[in-house]
Amino acid sequence: MSSTYGEKIKISVFGESHGGGIGVVIDGLPAGKTIDMDAVLLQMARRAPGKDKTATPRKESDLPKILSGILGDTLTGAPLCAVIENTNTRSQDYGNLLSKPRPGHSDYTAYVKYHAANDIRGGGHFSGRLTAPLVFAGAVCRQLLAQKGIQIAAHIAGIGSVLDEPFDPVRIEPALIERLNRSSFALINEETEAAMRDEVEVARLEQDSVGGTIECAVTGLPAGVGGPMFGGVEGAIAKAVFGVPAVKGIEFGAGFSLASMRGSQANDPFCVENGKIVTETNNCGGILGGITDGMPVIFRAAIKPTPSVSQPQKTVDLQTMTNTTLEIHGRHDPCIVPRAVPVIEAVAAIAVINLLGD
Amino acid sequence: MSSTYGEKIKISVFGESHGGGIGVVIDGLPAGKTIDMDAVLLQMARRAPGKDKTATPRKESDLPKILSGILGDTLTGAPLCAVIENTNTRSQDYGNLLSKPRPGHSDYTAYVKYHAANDIRGGGHFSGRLTAPLVFAGAVCRQLLAQKGIQIAAHIAGIGSVLDEPFDPVRIEPALIERLNRSSFALINEETEAAMRDEVEVARLEQDSVGGTIECAVTGLPAGVGGPMFGGVEGAIAKAVFGVPAVKGIEFGAGFSLASMRGSQANDPFCVENGKIVTETNNCGGILGGITDGMPVIFRAAIKPTPSVSQPQKTVDLQTMTNTTLEIHGRHDPCIVPRAVPVIEAVAAIAVINLLGD
Amino acid sequence: MSSTYGEKIKISVFGESHGGGIGVVIDGLPAGKTIDMDAVLLQMARRAPGKDKTATPRKESDLPKILSGILGDTLTGAPLCAVIENTNTRSQDYGNLLSKPRPGHSDYTAYVKYHAANDIRGGGHFSGRLTAPLVFAGAVCRQLLAQKGIQIAAHIAGIGSVLDEPFDPVRIEPALIERLNRSSFALINEETEAAMRDEVEVARLEQDSVGGTIECAVTGLPAGVGGPMFGGVEGAIAKAVFGVPAVKGIEFGAGFSLASMRGSQANDPFCVENGKIVTETNNCGGILGGITDGMPVIFRAAIKPTPSVSQPQKTVDLQTMTNTTLEIHGRHDPCIVPRAVPVIEAVAAIAVINLLGD
Amino acid sequence: MSSTYGEKIKISVFGESHGGGIGVVIDGLPAGKTIDMDAVLLQMARRAPGKDKTATPRKESDLPKILSGILGDTLTGAPLCAVIENTNTRSQDYGNLLSKPRPGHSDYTAYVKYHAANDIRGGGHFSGRLTAPLVFAGAVCRQLLAQKGIQIAAHIAGIGSVLDEPFDPVRIEPALIERLNRSSFALINEETEAAMRDEVEVARLEQDSVGGTIECAVTGLPAGVGGPMFGGVEGAIAKAVFGVPAVKGIEFGAGFSLASMRGSQANDPFCVENGKIVTETNNCGGILGGITDGMPVIFRAAIKPTPSVSQPQKTVDLQTMTNTTLEIHGRHDPCIVPRAVPVIEAVAAIAVINLLGD
Repeated sequence: MSSTYGEKIKISVFGESHGGGIGVVIDGLPAGKTIDMDAVLLQMARRAPGKDKTATPRKESDLPKILSGILGDTLTGAPLCAVIENTNTRSQDYGNLLSKPRPGHSDYTAYVKYHAANDIRGGGHFSGRLTAPLVFAGAVCRQLLAQKGIQIAAHIAGIGSVLDEPFDPVRIEPALIERLNRSSFALINEETEAAMRDEVEVARLEQDSVGGTIECAVTGLPAGVGGPMFGGVEGAIAKAVFGVPAVKGIEFGAGFSLASMRGSQANDPFCVENGKIVTETNNCGGILGGITDGMPVIFRAAIKPTPSVSQPQKTVDLQTMTNTTLEIHGRHDPCIVPRAVPVIEAVAAIAVINLLGD
Repeated sequence: MSSTYGEKIKISVFGESHGGGIGVVIDGLPAGKTIDMDAVLLQMARRAPGKDKTATPRKESDLPKILSGILGDTLTGAPLCAVIENTNTRSQDYGNLLSKPRPGHSDYTAYVKYHAANDIRGGGHFSGRLTAPLVFAGAVCRQLLAQKGIQIAAHIAGIGSVLDEPFDPVRIEPALIERLNRSSFALINEETEAAMRDEVEVARLEQDSVGGTIECAVTGLPAGVGGPMFGGVEGAIAKAVFGVPAVKGIEFGAGFSLASMRGSQANDPFCVENGKIVTETNNCGGILGGITDGMPVIFRAAIKPTPSVSQPQKTVDLQTMTNTTLEIHGRHDPCIVPRAVPVIEAVAAIAVINLLGD
Repeated sequence: MSSTYGEKIKISVFGESHGGGIGVVIDGLPAGKTIDMDAVLLQMARRAPGKDKTATPRKESDLPKILSGILGDTLTGAPLCAVIENTNTRSQDYGNLLSKPRPGHSDYTAYVKYHAANDIRGGGHFSGRLTAPLVFAGAVCRQLLAQKGIQIAAHIAGIGSVLDEPFDPVRIEPALIERLNRSSFALINEETEAAMRDEVEVARLEQDSVGGTIECAVTGLPAGVGGPMFGGVEGAIAKAVFGVPAVKGIEFGAGFSLASMRGSQANDPFCVENGKIVTETNNCGGILGGITDGMPVIFRAAIKPTPSVSQPQKTVDLQTMTNTTLEIHGRHDPCIVPRAVPVIEAVAAIAVINLLGD
Repeated sequence: MSSTYGEKIKISVFGESHGGGIGVVIDGLPAGKTIDMDAVLLQMARRAPGKDKTATPRKESDLPKILSGILGDTLTGAPLCAVIENTNTRSQDYGNLLSKPRPGHSDYTAYVKYHAANDIRGGGHFSGRLTAPLVFAGAVCRQLLAQKGIQIAAHIAGIGSVLDEPFDPVRIEPALIERLNRSSFALINEETEAAMRDEVEVARLEQDSVGGTIECAVTGLPAGVGGPMFGGVEGAIAKAVFGVPAVKGIEFGAGFSLASMRGSQANDPFCVENGKIVTETNNCGGILGGITDGMPVIFRAAIKPTPSVSQPQKTVDLQTMTNTTLEIHGRHDPCIVPRAVPVIEAVAAIAVINLLGD
């Protein structure tokens, strides 16, 4: 496996959903910077399950224990290791999964790659629970970014057929960012919440689940970050975002809708505003030639529906190599999109901090 | 800049559109394998400009000169370096670009990052011409993949509002792959060509350009390639595909449409077919938990319209920091999508060969 | 900091000598292989302090806690994280070090690089204690290597002026390897031990310390591992070995003595022995052109004397920028060479496992 | 093969001694810096063969052709590619090498790794000729370092039994550096030259060759460069230096002689000199805990004797798997040490520039 990211700030995630603990090592952090651990815990709470009907009833504290790298509230420069113990596990829920892979899950592919050795209980290292250390790492990175004036905020762009308003791509207010950064159901138009929760509840009652999209913005990045070809901002962010389980697509700026646009529409005209060069529109998502242009970097990620649904599903028996059906019991989110919002922000932060200082 | 990709087969692309030459070093190729150079040249010809009204009138031979790494038709194991000389350049076409950045191009961001040092003529290292060495490298990699039964084929999924048929995601015939691999206007339904060419011609006559999408399939990959988190197949391919200029989005399998699907629809049921485990549908694009499941890996890339349009455009004068307008003369493709098809195949090959043998 | 090594099996070491704990994440281990944890603990015990007069009186259990990556005795394929808690710390011993850097230590350079943020107590992340997780990681890697017939053994080649016999460079008996691998004072000629311990004791009584050399052999490597230039075996091993604190030199085969040899002496003649190509001598240390030739890979590392000596030493006061003197109290090894033997073996294992399977 | 080095300034060397050409791509160079190409050519001339009796009679121009990355004398920021054509090759000299590997050469190990595919003529990619692009890359890097006040100089520390004076490890005069940087037989004490040339001539007349050592100093490095463990200066330089063919050992500061020193001798006392912290001695080679202390970084590399000697040597016939003898004809240096001096400087520059800006 390769649960590592970054050449400058190197992230190495470890753990399995039902092992002794999960966590992350962050190597390369700058000595002397201060970290507000309460702000880190806030981000982790946003991701934590068990808050309401959109999330799994599993309770967990998810309080990270810092083994190294911080003295008081100051980074020492040594690799920072944070561990989250696994305390509330019910592995018997997963007893029949070894022979019948769950559709839409990694059971089958992990079985092929790691054989019987893969600790299937709860998804092992593939579990969504492994996003907790990602959020921890991202929370550290985004504080360092904020000290340079760079902010990251995401919201639920859509759940099923219910859509939030998009970001204004050329002007994102700090107050909005701050509000989103504290929300566990992050929306630009908060009146959308009820309809989204209904969408999830309907799916849940039908023993089903529902997907969605998340839109994320990075503001305050100066022009000139990134590079052409494989050094580009899009590739770096995409590589990080596809590290989040359930992400199946990413688009920057106008993204796929550029495919049906004319160049004269798609091109963002440059203009001078208050002595600074800006663009009138932001169809390029703040990135030209792989390099930031000083406008907000904006992308959307597609999140597939939770594959764990309670309905009977067709699958195979790996022992007998015959077709069969499977009913999944246990705890599952009918919609992981709200909890995925801080995760997307986190990996965006990890990607962006690695792009800086080249 | 970082025009490098890969840890196993390391690609390093060099060159500027109007310098002495462009090319690529491929480090890590296996000794003793044979390469059919005619097949390489065929791929380069598919990308080469000047063939018809959808492509730029610039003529170039694009014949690569091999400096090392091949003896006869056999890889020696040493780094393979191929150079393509720049012979047909008209840099005077670009005389006024230094002060007026072209909207949608990298002129401004390269100016900020590289200052006056950036060789702006023809886009410098940002030029689409730099995709020629990518196609070369990909053509070598895909021959090695083909020796393992892995095929890569892409087609124009859409230009503007005109769409081709999509791949059958669970069954892609070898004959179709072979036909697409030889086509310079690759379509599944060839009757779409006329409408697409019309779409481009209309845009051209209106001094405009048009974007599109490319769908790419990788067949023959065994189950078990890739890994969870940052070692996943999606991230590796996305990182490579965003290395191609003009790509602004990528989605795997059902991609963004998963966002409005239910889990019961999105999950691909497993079944046994001829003693082998397959899925009935392929909404996951052949990838579960970052690992291939043995079905075709399928993704779509969004290609923005060529930013060079002949219409007057709003921009700024970098010297005077005032608003102004710009008219672009010179040679440009009104639609680069057809020529981008072999480029997408090439970077997919580069990504896939680096995923194997982990 | 960059306490990471490897592209295939990625090692990420964390911790500070007097923080909450130290440990390591090993990413990329093959699923399904079994690990004998008792054998791992044996290697850690060889490195552990407090055994006799050559080692520090600090007691510590050094028992690693496995958080992930192993289920029972089997690697799951997920990143393996092992944590060793810090329980016996006496940070008051180090109270005066912040202002007076200890000669020969990293105090000054860490102060410059990490400022006051560096957790100086006990050397922080620079502490020799951080070699415990290295030994853990190496012990896992060498078991995987042993399953392929590759053995690694080192011995104290010299302490001060007392020298052990060198390895027979063309024939290293398995029984010798096994004996060395269990020894906490590893010698080829065990009769040398008394004289070496005397050398250390004399230095200790004079409030001084003493350095030495360690010779290490890797047997069972097939011919053909490594590559030319920066892909060579020497560079990979050297990079890993210089990761061990106190190492100041490395030489392969005849090493520095090659400088005064003639080519006709230095060249190792090839000959056929039992149908296999071997060399009559092994001045090249089993490596030609960066690639193994099938003979034992042999190298020697120079270990500087422990810089902590109880004698008064000249140093500076960083606050007043004046010359001063320093007396170091606390716990120190007068000679770390015996305990460094398993550390050198460990990093050799980490390097070698990353060279395989290219 | 992996002929690449660096994460910040990425070097990718290509070519074979008797192919179409050799060269290097340097990715990541800063835009806008000027490069004095005459100074680059001076360094290449120092390495070039055919100057006197210590060097091979093969003539070659070794004039690099710049394909990209420089416009006028200014770095554009794009990858710099330089090609040196192979014009003077006599591959028939190497006709019998495929079946009889030369002792001390990479013939056998390359045969095992790359099979018949390896282009054995002249050593292929293993040839010492491949150090020409290294010198080119190093010459570019050292100009960038010099613009920051960092100088690199090496000299022949010894050939056979004849030794030059060592550097004064605490004070290296700029005039000495400048003189060494222009010399093709670089010595601190120039009166040593005659004895060294005699040593080589005697070996040559006896159809033999001779090895030596090279001492290299990096001055002007600020304190605080590098890091602990695998991020250390020693490991980075060692990895680069072992990339040079024929290097079999490296030691920093007092190196292997530290093994027989006491701590009280080995420790370099700190003192304040002109308001700056320096050390009175420099046994640590300017590096403590993997981090520079502001004193000159000093290391020595062991160079094995040229393995090509004209005497009959014992080897094997790979076809018949029998013992046989071999006589090597063709062009060879009886001593490569003088020409290796600029190569060692070059790789030191490549390593150091990658250490900066972490």
